[in-house]
Amino acid sequence: MSPTTEVLLYFASRAQNVDEWIRPALGRGEIVLADRFTDSSSVYQGCGRGLGLATIEALDHVACRGLKPDVTLLVDIDAETSLARARARNAAETSEETRMDEQSIEFHRRVYDAYHALAAREPERVKIVDGRAGIDEIERDIWSIVSLHV
Amino acid sequence: MSPTTEVLLYFASRAQNVDEWIRPALGRGEIVLADRFTDSSSVYQGCGRGLGLATIEALDHVACRGLKPDVTLLVDIDAETSLARARARNAAETSEETRMDEQSIEFHRRVYDAYHALAAREPERVKIVDGRAGIDEIERDIWSIVSLHV
Repeated sequence: MSPTTEVLLYFASRAQNVDEWIRPALGRGEIVLADRFTDSSSVYQGCGRGLGLATIEALDHVACRGLKPDVTLLVDIDAETSLARARARNAAETSEETRMDEQSIEFHRRVYDAYHALAAREPERVKIVDGRAGIDEIERDIWSIVSLHV
Repeated sequence: MSPTTEVLLYFASRAQNVDEWIRPALGRGEIVLADRFTDSSSVYQGCGRGLGLATIEALDHVACRGLKPDVTLLVDIDAETSLARARARNAAETSEETRMDEQSIEFHRRVYDAYHALAAREPERVKIVDGRAGIDEIERDIWSIVSLHV
């Protein structure tokens, strides 16, 4: 699969999520939590695959039509620890390996740097949480950020 | 499926065709014939579904990166005759019904008008062939246009 095909499929899935689930939920006044959104495409496909941020912005404009998260949580963990955790989960069969887990460590370092560049560009929206902390502390940090928005 | 999802899936397929087949063939100096390309998305999704031509142009830019047909053949037939032929083929099981065959006659009339508007905008590239003629005459007309480009 070419990188362009991959990013178009991710945005096809996102467009359906937006039209079928997210906009109706927002219309009912609900709070929407998304595991990933356009920020992931910016870092994985825009930077990791080298398609460029202008491509991602154009597709976001088509698929999401201005819909943007109020807050984005970036759980900060170095690429090596993150991959080791993902592989441990996969070995324990508690999650499926994704297309991204198979990528090289260089790919994941580009993704890491791109996430931090994103947080630097939009510090009001993108909040960094220390992923090396314990689960309880991470939960507390996330809630202290999210509670400002609800 | 939402109209936005549909158009993104068509362009995902097109991007893979471009990257896997069309660009390599052009690189070998071959002639590429495509049954449909971005013009179909402009008229079916841009006009028929009402997504607008700017959306199609943005997706074409991502998926095709400037690749454009040297010549486009528009086989001109009124919507009623075209649909009757498609339904006869489907009844004879010589072709599958497509998502577009199921649409209303109003949808197909919008598509018809959009194809002719396209031909009016780009008369040098988009050539109209009379689809009411017999197969032999249509073949002759097509070859007289294509032979100017090969």
